[in-house]
Amino acid sequence: MSAARLLQRCDQLAAISVTEGAICRTYLTDEHRRCNQQVMQWMEAAGMHAYTDAAGNCWGRYPGVEDMEQALVLGSHLDTVRNAGRYDGILGVLAAIEVVERFHARGRRFPFHIDVVGFADEEGSRFGATLLGSRAVAGQWDPAWLELRDADGIAMAEAFTRFGLDPEQIAQASRAGNKLLGYWELHIEQGPVLEQRGLPLGLVSAIAGARRLQFTLRGRAGHAGTVPMEMRRDALVAAAGAVQIVDAQARHFGVVATVGKIEARPGSVNVIPGSCHFTLDIRSGDDALRDRALETILREIGEHCECAQVAMEYCEIHGAAAVACAPSLLDAGRRALQRCGLEPLSLPSGAGHDAMAMAAVTDIGMFFLRCREGISHHPDESVTTEDVALALDVLEAAVTETENSMI
Amino acid sequence: MSAARLLQRCDQLAAISVTEGAICRTYLTDEHRRCNQQVMQWMEAAGMHAYTDAAGNCWGRYPGVEDMEQALVLGSHLDTVRNAGRYDGILGVLAAIEVVERFHARGRRFPFHIDVVGFADEEGSRFGATLLGSRAVAGQWDPAWLELRDADGIAMAEAFTRFGLDPEQIAQASRAGNKLLGYWELHIEQGPVLEQRGLPLGLVSAIAGARRLQFTLRGRAGHAGTVPMEMRRDALVAAAGAVQIVDAQARHFGVVATVGKIEARPGSVNVIPGSCHFTLDIRSGDDALRDRALETILREIGEHCECAQVAMEYCEIHGAAAVACAPSLLDAGRRALQRCGLEPLSLPSGAGHDAMAMAAVTDIGMFFLRCREGISHHPDESVTTEDVALALDVLEAAVTETENSMI
Repeated sequence: MSAARLLQRCDQLAAISVTEGAICRTYLTDEHRRCNQQVMQWMEAAGMHAYTDAAGNCWGRYPGVEDMEQALVLGSHLDTVRNAGRYDGILGVLAAIEVVERFHARGRRFPFHIDVVGFADEEGSRFGATLLGSRAVAGQWDPAWLELRDADGIAMAEAFTRFGLDPEQIAQASRAGNKLLGYWELHIEQGPVLEQRGLPLGLVSAIAGARRLQFTLRGRAGHAGTVPMEMRRDALVAAAGAVQIVDAQARHFGVVATVGKIEARPGSVNVIPGSCHFTLDIRSGDDALRDRALETILREIGEHCECAQVAMEYCEIHGAAAVACAPSLLDAGRRALQRCGLEPLSLPSGAGHDAMAMAAVTDIGMFFLRCREGISHHPDESVTTEDVALALDVLEAAVTETENSMI
Repeated sequence: MSAARLLQRCDQLAAISVTEGAICRTYLTDEHRRCNQQVMQWMEAAGMHAYTDAAGNCWGRYPGVEDMEQALVLGSHLDTVRNAGRYDGILGVLAAIEVVERFHARGRRFPFHIDVVGFADEEGSRFGATLLGSRAVAGQWDPAWLELRDADGIAMAEAFTRFGLDPEQIAQASRAGNKLLGYWELHIEQGPVLEQRGLPLGLVSAIAGARRLQFTLRGRAGHAGTVPMEMRRDALVAAAGAVQIVDAQARHFGVVATVGKIEARPGSVNVIPGSCHFTLDIRSGDDALRDRALETILREIGEHCECAQVAMEYCEIHGAAAVACAPSLLDAGRRALQRCGLEPLSLPSGAGHDAMAMAAVTDIGMFFLRCREGISHHPDESVTTEDVALALDVLEAAVTETENSMI
């Protein structure tokens, strides 16, 4: 029953959108406020004390058995990309509320508070910077962000004021220094692995860190009709070899690597490309493995370009370390999956999540839920009621297993 | 001596430019008129009767020994691309004038008129359509072109009127039906082959016909972090294979083929390309060879995409047949080169030329002149005085060899 209600609530929140006919809910908007109000109402109905923090995140506390400070946090985010689906983030928040409601209905209390959080900004759709809600909670808010402006030129500081929050008080949202036992997040997989393996749920081993590079290859432009093949130094032909090296080495090392953008210049149908620009995004749950793969890719592309008499330059435009899930929560998660009769498959998360930010203040654990064709950030996001029912059982079991591991 | 004067005249014409500090001379402009006036003055000084035809081309007639209709045409074009060099086209017109001046100085007459032509538009820089001057002469003028507009919105018909020509009379420029013995054109190579071979001149075997295709490969977009390599259908990885097939098969068949434009979509650093668009330009002096090469390329790309589970579509956006130089003129050209002590290397022209249009009304023959690094359509175009001197001797010899071949 609670799975069906959860999906119905996802539909209800999908209607709270900045754009008509599509789902888009961004930070510090009226829709953010209306969404928080609705979610807080559901939190209260589930036995929690609900409030909005200084960064606009919405919280519900399900109090522990005695007067203590320690808390277990469950949640995800409530904001969306533009033209979003209805489950990314949202489903994890609503699942946490359902699980608490089960405990509440049974009068089940824990030797810790359960704090359910709906982070206000994970996607960064309005101001560009991402994970704003969870970074505020993790005590990693950067005051410079207040000067970021949205597409209408509104600064974030002004948006805070319009929302009814004081941008000077954001630091109060931080839970750094609190006694936190851990953070559990349930999220749709956003990838095809679980569907392929025929599993409804998986346990995240680590959140991959990405490195991103920008390459420039320089050969020699020329007339497509007058320069014989053997006299060419075609930058795009060299780049084509580079794309294939990236693909082959990513498979060889067991990491993921993607060339997402490419441009040949001057870019005319009848001119041999004199230069070619392309990007590389390479990720793994294991930083050392990723770095070894990248080293091999760079060496092979370098050798390939040298043979082709094409000059190669690159620069790194982004680098983030992988964030591992805590061994104790991995154990608890594995037991939770087994208790529900599921194979405890663990897999890395290639995408970033609020859990990455939360890792700065507490241990993290994550479950992935199978989603149809791995589609996310798109209206076609889809999950089944059966899978959601299992997810609720698993998340519930994870809370009790976390309790067990404290003993 | 005449080579030095020719180069000095190229400098003089370079100063007649629409844009200050760069060379640009386009169709039906004041600069076109001033250029024609200067060239016609040189024609008259070389013993010719000069005039401008109904399409704006400038002509000089060096009359034959007796009253006859047949004529041998020598020439090239006087217009330029934007930010041009000073030799492309121009050098061929001025060389023809120098050669006639030599005959005139010696009182040498032929049993045919020598008609020197400076075509008014080959590059199509102003109205987009190319070979306008020579297509008018070849009787292939399309009246629809009069509606083409330049960047300022001026229709070609109006430009004709402003230039002082009647757009209704363009058909009078046609020399279809005239007794023409042939058309000789001297042009810079615009490629690196002669320089590489250490030869000042080459004989053009044929003007290659290009076929141009637009490809679309469709795979499946996805998150660069969450989709494992073995579950991807990356359209850019497939396109990279296609680019390498094009390169390898062009070498194998001895044609030239170029992928000049490529775009991966959606085109984000962190998204697996779901589709990829690219162009193909393939050329050869031999249409059948070119078509066999293309057939192989299409089959191999098709097989490659099938393996990669990527859909392939393509459409042909341009197709032109190769234009062969006339065997009789090839013979005369070969003898002319040998008489001047040069190896008679023949090579296809990958670029288009006025000779292509002239082939509709007469036999064509072309000489290529070595240019530094194969550079053309750029201020860095460069030729040597020694090479130009040889070119004048060869063009002179080609005229007398053409006379010999009539006997």
